[in-house]
Parts: sequence; structure tokens; C-alpha cells
Amino acid sequence: MVSSPRIAIDAMGGDVGPAVMCAGAALAHSRRPDLSFLLFGDESAIRAELAAHPAIAGVTEIVHTPDTISAADKPSQAIRRSKTTSMGRAIAAVKAGEAHAAVSGGNTGALMAMAKLTFRTMKGIDRPALAALLPTLGDNDLVMLDLGANTESDARNLVQFAVMGAAYARVVLDLESPRVQLLNIGTEELKGTDELKDAAAILREADYLGMRFEGFIEGDKISRGDVDVVVTDGFSGNIALKSLEGTARFVTDLLRRAFTSSLRSKIGFLISRPATELLKHHLDPNNHNGAVFLGLNGLVVKSHGSANEKGVANAIRVAARMVREDLTRKIIEDLDNISAHRIEQAAK
Amino acid sequence: MVSSPRIAIDAMGGDVGPAVMCAGAALAHSRRPDLSFLLFGDESAIRAELAAHPAIAGVTEIVHTPDTISAADKPSQAIRRSKTTSMGRAIAAVKAGEAHAAVSGGNTGALMAMAKLTFRTMKGIDRPALAALLPTLGDNDLVMLDLGANTESDARNLVQFAVMGAAYARVVLDLESPRVQLLNIGTEELKGTDELKDAAAILREADYLGMRFEGFIEGDKISRGDVDVVVTDGFSGNIALKSLEGTARFVTDLLRRAFTSSLRSKIGFLISRPATELLKHHLDPNNHNGAVFLGLNGLVVKSHGSANEKGVANAIRVAARMVREDLTRKIIEDLDNISAHRIEQAAK
Repeated sequence: MVSSPRIAIDAMGGDVGPAVMCAGAALAHSRRPDLSFLLFGDESAIRAELAAHPAIAGVTEIVHTPDTISAADKPSQAIRRSKTTSMGRAIAAVKAGEAHAAVSGGNTGALMAMAKLTFRTMKGIDRPALAALLPTLGDNDLVMLDLGANTESDARNLVQFAVMGAAYARVVLDLESPRVQLLNIGTEELKGTDELKDAAAILREADYLGMRFEGFIEGDKISRGDVDVVVTDGFSGNIALKSLEGTARFVTDLLRRAFTSSLRSKIGFLISRPATELLKHHLDPNNHNGAVFLGLNGLVVKSHGSANEKGVANAIRVAARMVREDLTRKIIEDLDNISAHRIEQAAK
Repeated sequence: MVSSPRIAIDAMGGDVGPAVMCAGAALAHSRRPDLSFLLFGDESAIRAELAAHPAIAGVTEIVHTPDTISAADKPSQAIRRSKTTSMGRAIAAVKAGEAHAAVSGGNTGALMAMAKLTFRTMKGIDRPALAALLPTLGDNDLVMLDLGANTESDARNLVQFAVMGAAYARVVLDLESPRVQLLNIGTEELKGTDELKDAAAILREADYLGMRFEGFIEGDKISRGDVDVVVTDGFSGNIALKSLEGTARFVTDLLRRAFTSSLRSKIGFLISRPATELLKHHLDPNNHNGAVFLGLNGLVVKSHGSANEKGVANAIRVAARMVREDLTRKIIEDLDNISAHRIEQAAK
């Protein structure tokens, strides 16, 4: 176990850049003072922002990079400029052992492409997946993947996502045998695409995978707290995640309108503010910020481009936790166990 | 224009059956007394329920059917039993001209299969799509399709969905030139599947389609009120719709918990009840119940299986409105205009 995680941060990524990344690092450090940072980006801009956060001056190193990946850059363009950009250098620092994990709020496609090229996928994994924690009405958050690392996924990919998602859930949710379901448009066995039906058939048979596979789940049941890992292709996962986020925002907007519609409701709102603050806290995407690329031989966390300092601090916390728990090694062990089991089965 | 819509109702479909279908018909009739009904199902069960709604006794005819389609029936099984079931007979009544539109809360796959076999798809349409109205923060609801009539859709299907969705929006939202977007995992031209990119390329060129095509939209922007028609394949559409519904319920559950968490917040809640009732009304899926199969030579509305009487009344209202507005003819005219335009273009 790594006791003092050192996090490489792409200080230029995201809608705001150095200001929010530095503030986020400072906030994360105030909660876990064993953290230290490597900040990549425009040195003078970073230095100006860091001046406001003297508490992390002693644990932060700045590495100047002349270039930044923009939201419009294609992954192929980004890869060519990897060595001069804050994003590329943050990832390279993890590869070189100068940091334990990288955090970026920049272009997801570029981040994915660079991370894949730098770390390579784990043995037994064809494609990495993007996983995040979502709030539920139950006692735990849930893990959902893939959230957009891949546009299309076959049955084999989906099974691998399930294995990686279960490993992640064991670590971050502290569950012995997570409940895993495939996102589908119905729960009957004959529903959905061939890829989903084939993946379900494999997962149903595979009792050695260290998870409880419980068939299909529909989009309206995700948040109920009855499942720990929701597995889906990257396209549907991205659509579902963004629909969840959009609706949560839609409802809180409606609520704000409702509460400001009359003097009476304004008074009611003021009195019940502790309750609505609790709701706001629960729904604030910043409290769930930090999506993880699973399946790579290295740790990379994607922070939302519009995350505030609390969101960035949360993404850093997610990265640090994976470092402390040695997530990469645990997933590799799971995959090794599975392939050993398969060889054993085949020999029988 | 048909002034007095006659609606064929599958009285046995849905989770509750005759009680809620009869109550829904009565509620719809109280708002629009020109409606009349043909109720299909178990005669004695329907008669018992209708006793509570004397106002519609004079405008309702009951047709006894011995059989019911269950949620577990496969579409192929349902089709074989079409002639003896309440669902099959309700659709047949529309085909025979005994009613103007059919409403069912039963098995969606079976309803789709029967409707397709009975009415056939319109000339120029390869596959029908399921469309519904969703609430937004803007002045209007929006039309979203396909919501699950098809598991997979190619570019040609998506373009046809756009044409049908625009025609529906013109009628139900009273818009001259609806804003149409394709649901995708990003807004850049290079994002998403080949099907989406191809569909976008066709829609971008086709300025004769009577819509404003505005590229891609992501799942978190759907409810903002910036788009009138959201087009997607049936799989993603179903996932998105259910994620929206589930999150709305999730948030209202959280809100209820928050408001009952202390005496103070209970008092605040009581004072601001008019505001929260407004929110509840806006989010109640019963107020948006009634999904339409577009692209068929006949009108069929799918009511949610768990709809209450208000929901059923709304589905009937949707059906009656399509009858009054002669939606089928309008979509056929749109399709004819488009094919005439294409022939003209080709001749140039």
C-alpha cells in the first residue's frame, strides 16, 4: 500500500484551468495532508494561482509545458503533441514513476487515447472503460461503466467491463461480492441486442468471477440502490449518465422556480433550507466527480470539464484512493484468477 | 377533420386493467364530451367498472373478448392470438373503421407487432417509431423518438424518424419548422456511430424537409427547452427515457426524505406545499402519458402499464388529438412532398 499518493495534475484541462485545479488540489490536501502534487501547464499561470494556496506550496512541484490539448483536438492530433502538452506530460509522469496517478479535466477522447498508448491495456482486456460512482437511494453509491470510452462494444468487451467494474466496486464500495447487472431495454432474457444477450449468457455461467450477476436492469431502476455495478456499452452509458445528470439539474431548476414563485413558498423554502441543502449536496455532480479509466496498466482519472474546486478535490480523492488500494494490481489479480480458473476448467 | 373521435380501448392492458381504463375514459370524456369509446375485454369485468361511470354509458360500447395479451407474451405468440384478444380486437376495430384510434396499456412489443401487421408501414417508411412528449424548462414540451420500437436503427431509419417526429411536432406543438437534433455522445461532427454521422449528413443537406436540423444533442441538454424533436435509435431512446423517468422519481424521493427529516423541514414543507405540488404535477409521468407509434397507416397510442386514471385520460387525449388533426394524412403528405422533391432534384 502506498501511504503518500503523489498525483500528477493536468493544470490546463477543464473549462477553467489552473485556478480551479490548484484550488481543488489545496482542498484535497486539507483533507488528506499526505498528498503531494505535480502540476503540469503554463508555469507563470500556475504559480499565480498557487500563491493563493500557500498550504500546498511545500508539497507541489510545477512542470512547465508550452502546449495544451483543447476540446476540439482529435485524439490523433493530441497524441502527436503528447510530449509538449500538460495532459500528455501528466500521463507520462505516472508511466515514469514520478507520480502514482494522473488527473485531468480535459478532452476525454484525447485523454483516453494518450492513456491507452502510454499504459497499454491489461492482459486479458481488449478495451479500457470509463467508470464512475453514481448516487443511489440505497446505502451505497454504484459503479457504472462504460461511460463513453468506446462507441461500440461487443459481448466480450461487456464481460470484461463487468469484471473490471466488480473489482472497482470491491475496492471503492468495500463489497465482497458486488451485484452486477447489464443495462438493457427490458429485463426478460430475450430483450436487447445480440451483444447483450451473449454477454448475459457468459456472465450467468461464470460463477467464478467474484460477483453476483443479476441479469438486466432498465434505466429507471439504476438509482434505486438494488445494484452495485451497472455495465453498458459506452454509447448507451454516456447517454444514460448525461440523461441522469440533466434530469437532476432539470428538477432542481424546477424546484428553485417553484420555491421562488410566491412569498409563501419563499418563506417555506427558508424554513426548510437544511432539507433542500441536503438534497443539493446529494445531487451536486461535484460530489461524484472523478471517472476512472479501468483496464489500463496505470491510473488516470477524468475530472468533469465544468467541475468546481470541490469537484476537482473529489477527482483527486478518487485517484488517491485507487493508489492507496493498489487498484491496478487488484484488477490484474482478478483477471489472472479468472484465466487460471478457465485453464483449470478446460483441463477437466 | 374528424369532430367526434371514437377511441378503441384495450380495457385489459396495463397493470390494473378495466378499472383504470374505464376511469380514464370517463375522465377524458368529462373534458371532451364529444369522445366516444369502444371497450374491448372481459364484458362482465368492464360492465362492473363502468357502473361507477354513468356519464359515459351512453357513448360506450363493450365488445367481449375471451383472451388477454400478458406482459410475458412474445410478439410472435401475441400475433397468433390477435383475433381473440382485447389488444388485437382494438387494433382491428381501427382498421375496420369502427374507431379512429386505439389505446392500450399492454405489452409494447406485442402492440407494436400487431399494429405493424394490421396497418402496415407508410410508403417511404421502413420501420415505425415510438414517440412521446417530454417536459422541458422551455415553453413547450418536446417530441422524442424512437423510444423502443426498434432495437437497432440505421441512418435511413433515423432520417425517417426525424421526418415523422417533425410532422408530429408540427401537429401537437403547433410549430411551423421544429428544431430537430440527433441524440449523441458529443456535439462535434466526428462524434458517435457511423449511423449517426450518416444520418446527420443527410439531414444537414435536406433543407426541403420542413424542419430546422441543428446537429447533435447530448443527454444532459434534452430538457433545457432548446430543441423540439430529439431523434435516436430505439435502444438509446429507451435507455434515455427511462433514465429521465428514474431520475425524476429519485429526486422527488430524496426531496420527500429531506422534507420529512426534521420537524423544521416538515413545517417548511407544509408552508411551501403549493410550490412542491406544482413540481410534482410537472414531473408526474401521468401528465405526459401516451406514446404514439408513428409511421403506420393507423393510429395507436401506448399508455404506460402503470398509468393511473389521469395517465389513461391523457393517452386518450393524445389519441383524440391525432384523430382531430388527421396526423396520419399529414405525415403521408410530408413524405410525399419529400419524395416529389427528390424526384425533382434527380431530374435536374
